[in-house]
Amino acid sequence: MSTPGFSSARPAYDLATLRARLDGLRMEDNPALIRQKSRDFYWYSPVLKRQLAEVTADLVVSVASEADIVRVLAACVELRIPVTPRGAGTGNYGQAMPLAGGVVLDLSGMDEVLEIAPGRVRAEPGAVLAEIDAQTRSRSGQELRLHPSTYRSASIGGFIAGGSGGVGSITWGGLRDLGNIISLTLLTMEAEPRRLRLTGDDLARVAHAYGTNGVIVEVEMPLAPACDWLEVIIGFESFAAAAAYGNALGEQDAILKKLVSVIAAPVPQAAFLRHRSFLPDGRHVALVMVDALAREAFEAFTRRFAGAEILFRSDRLAPEEAKGLPPLYELSWNHTTLRALRVDPAITYLQTLYPFPDQLALVSRIHEALGDEVAAHLEFVRFDGKVTCFGLPLVRFTTEERLAEIVALHEAMGAVVFDPHRYTLEEGGMKQTDPDQLAFKREADPHGLLNPHKMIAWEDPAFDFSGARTYLFPGIGA
Amino acid sequence: MSTPGFSSARPAYDLATLRARLDGLRMEDNPALIRQKSRDFYWYSPVLKRQLAEVTADLVVSVASEADIVRVLAACVELRIPVTPRGAGTGNYGQAMPLAGGVVLDLSGMDEVLEIAPGRVRAEPGAVLAEIDAQTRSRSGQELRLHPSTYRSASIGGFIAGGSGGVGSITWGGLRDLGNIISLTLLTMEAEPRRLRLTGDDLARVAHAYGTNGVIVEVEMPLAPACDWLEVIIGFESFAAAAAYGNALGEQDAILKKLVSVIAAPVPQAAFLRHRSFLPDGRHVALVMVDALAREAFEAFTRRFAGAEILFRSDRLAPEEAKGLPPLYELSWNHTTLRALRVDPAITYLQTLYPFPDQLALVSRIHEALGDEVAAHLEFVRFDGKVTCFGLPLVRFTTEERLAEIVALHEAMGAVVFDPHRYTLEEGGMKQTDPDQLAFKREADPHGLLNPHKMIAWEDPAFDFSGARTYLFPGIGA
Ligand SMILES: Cc1cc2nc3c(=O)[nH]c(=O)nc-3n(C[C@H](O)[C@H](O)[C@H](O)COP(=O)(O)OP(=O)(O)OC[C@H]3O[C@@H](n4cnc5c(N)ncnc54)[C@H](O)[C@@H]3O)c2cc1C
Ligand SMILES: Cc1cc2nc3c(=O)[nH]c(=O)nc-3n(C[C@H](O)[C@H](O)[C@H](O)COP(=O)(O)OP(=O)(O)OC[C@H]3O[C@@H](n4cnc5c(N)ncnc54)[C@H](O)[C@@H]3O)c2cc1C
Repeated sequence: MSTPGFSSARPAYDLATLRARLDGLRMEDNPALIRQKSRDFYWYSPVLKRQLAEVTADLVVSVASEADIVRVLAACVELRIPVTPRGAGTGNYGQAMPLAGGVVLDLSGMDEVLEIAPGRVRAEPGAVLAEIDAQTRSRSGQELRLHPSTYRSASIGGFIAGGSGGVGSITWGGLRDLGNIISLTLLTMEAEPRRLRLTGDDLARVAHAYGTNGVIVEVEMPLAPACDWLEVIIGFESFAAAAAYGNALGEQDAILKKLVSVIAAPVPQAAFLRHRSFLPDGRHVALVMVDALAREAFEAFTRRFAGAEILFRSDRLAPEEAKGLPPLYELSWNHTTLRALRVDPAITYLQTLYPFPDQLALVSRIHEALGDEVAAHLEFVRFDGKVTCFGLPLVRFTTEERLAEIVALHEAMGAVVFDPHRYTLEEGGMKQTDPDQLAFKREADPHGLLNPHKMIAWEDPAFDFSGARTYLFPGIGA
Repeated sequence: MSTPGFSSARPAYDLATLRARLDGLRMEDNPALIRQKSRDFYWYSPVLKRQLAEVTADLVVSVASEADIVRVLAACVELRIPVTPRGAGTGNYGQAMPLAGGVVLDLSGMDEVLEIAPGRVRAEPGAVLAEIDAQTRSRSGQELRLHPSTYRSASIGGFIAGGSGGVGSITWGGLRDLGNIISLTLLTMEAEPRRLRLTGDDLARVAHAYGTNGVIVEVEMPLAPACDWLEVIIGFESFAAAAAYGNALGEQDAILKKLVSVIAAPVPQAAFLRHRSFLPDGRHVALVMVDALAREAFEAFTRRFAGAEILFRSDRLAPEEAKGLPPLYELSWNHTTLRALRVDPAITYLQTLYPFPDQLALVSRIHEALGDEVAAHLEFVRFDGKVTCFGLPLVRFTTEERLAEIVALHEAMGAVVFDPHRYTLEEGGMKQTDPDQLAFKREADPHGLLNPHKMIAWEDPAFDFSGARTYLFPGIGA
């Protein structure tokens, strides 16, 4: 396999004129810094690490207002220069990586919380999730319903354009669910950018579209009560018992929860270094965030499970014990993967959904088939009104061929795989064209300049998703 | 069938000594007023109407404090006089009716809201639900998670001791779910009444125990955000379409809802008199209360259902139109029954649960089998982590035998029936002894003086629930 040569395949953009047009805006042209802002957590995947190693933008432009963005978009349309929006760059699959070079539009400076009201918040896209919550909490006793485990670094715009759900999904489902975003305002990629406000079904055009069809300039999100979340780790002798507990806790309608993760031994012991002293060898764990007001209800629930042992609870720590511990959600979702990777760089992962109602049986069957090569990690969520689980199984990486076999085995057995080793929307998602997103891209980005090569449907309408072939954009060799 | 003669079967209580012991408390001995306070909505059932017609207490004692209650309980234990607690008397199956006479303990004067905090409220048992919410709403932007449709009259103590759920159960499940009650404090029926605070699994001993094993003197309930609830009525050409819509709306995890009721034509047209002009003939309806912030999400959801027509929405009413309309929840749950009864006294009802996952198919099969004799009324709820529905079907009453046949047909086809034509805990519930409630009664009411004859397990431990025989307490003839 050869590494693609991007710079050679890439058209030469008129950067001099662009600079002149954007005079007064903050522009970065130090190649090392540009390279840094052209990256995300794509290196989780050994496949993408190889494919995207050389990807870099020509220029990073930082904006502080909508007027700034209008200038950048208008100039780039005129000069046919691609633009890739960027929040905090914590995306996973090269989402924010400028495959065709051009401009990385850094939105991190547009980070104001604009309005807090009962049940909702309006914010600029670059606002960091934890910063939004700091304000909604102190000013109104409310917080965002959902956040990725990258809560303390990720932006709200990047979460909506690149994420799917995470902490909170056990109660609220995912970003795809009607009601988890109230409205989005975006600017189109046109000579005269239009400002559009989307609600209802139209949100699906832009949410999880990787910024391919408009730049989000304002978000309006629902808020939930800011509970005092108790962090608890429960240990089990068998993984099946831990999974059954997680599922049953998910189904407790009246116990407010924010997190129910189940992780097979020996991952917790190996990867959760700061919590190590709480984690006896061999124990499979559930990580739980539960409303402190439901403390007794939660304890009563847990007592029903013979063999469930509370190993850790945040309300029973001595101050010395609490010091230096990361928040529990930073052991969950893709942070589990990150922590495992840190101690063993040969590890990679998958993203799966085990459909209701057979999720627990399916999980056991798959992990029985795969043995030690794949360690189970479940995240319980509400999905279409039922409790089920996503998986972020940890894979001992050997070859890309074997990784593909493991994906195929998951699919053959009945799991849905959202392949984190693909950088396109479709291959990382439902493996089919989203006609709404495509139609909207025609309107909002007629020249195909926003985050190019991420939407197969745009680039190659005839692409056959059922085949085994990976989509590779022009200029990339596999 | 003969009507039982209560007064003759009843022991003579030493009321003179009791009066002396309770000197200073408000006591009512006008027989007409005592009779009034010895009744609830038992007359919904033609069976109970016949069986309980003569039930009356000897004395109504009104209390304003815990100290008052201690005096009443101690004196009644000493004199072996039964005590039946009473909130607002809106219970249905003679729950608050003093089958053995004695004292009705009127708790409606003990109605203070004691504390409001983020996520919870503490209140005295006699506080009316809507009054609690008026305070939690204005002082904290919060409200109770659950309330019966008798919100504007029922007490919180009566709801917990006699109710099961209702408005809000589509999001939070029922009172039986761990987490929907934080704590209860009660007084035992002993010579020296003890004060016990219950949490977790212990709550099940007292919740829905009809006040047979302690007098609740304080409740601590979780609160939810007080949304601006939009009231919507959606019309459908077929009942199956309405039911499918209600179920699917229930499964929208991110659209906050408080009510999803589905009622077959011609009940809405016949019974919802004030809303009549919004209800075209023949249309089956869904009654919905949905978070106004989810307006666009809700509209997008509803648009997916061909044939779903919005007939009424509270945010589009002219002020003249809104005048005199009852709140939507007063068309739902047992208020549907009440309104139907008011226009046709020959109607009665059942209470059923259609278990997940076959609820919709089961509902159609049952109603197909029963035709016009029984009109479908569904209340969608979360139950054990899934969305399903309770039924409060309206039955054209002919004979008690036919009513029993209809119950049997429901059970034979797979529905669970909570028979509203029975006054005992067990027969109106799961048709088996609740060992926790029974064990706790031994502790909290060793002389069996609290609301006698309601717990079969106490009165007749050998009673065979599997048989067709109705439990009748001594002194009642069937
Ligand atoms: C350790 C770790 C844990 C994670 N956990 C989760 C998780 O629990 N749940 C989850 O969903 N994801 C998770 N992710 C993925 C990622 O963190 C989230 O998607 C995150 O919300 C991205 O935010 P960001 O600001 O870093 O976005 P970026 O990475 O900057 O951008 C993400 C995508 O959105 C686009 N974009 C950014 N801003 C805009 C805008 N204003 N308008 C239009 N498009 C825009 C970018 O072009 C890119 O395609 C995790 C990633 C890591 C590395
Ligand atoms: C039109 C209508 C609609 C209804 N809708 C619903 C509904 O949606 N959901 C639902 O669950 N129920 C419903 N019900 C039943 C009833 O309204 C509820 O159970 C209600 O909450 C009872 O409250 P109350 O104060 O009237 O109780 P009461 O009728 O006064 O008492 C109910 C029971 O609780 C006991 N009790 C009362 N206070 C105490 C106390 N402090 N300590 C111990 N025991 C006590 C009584 O002895 C009795 O057994 C409905 C009834 C009607 C008539």
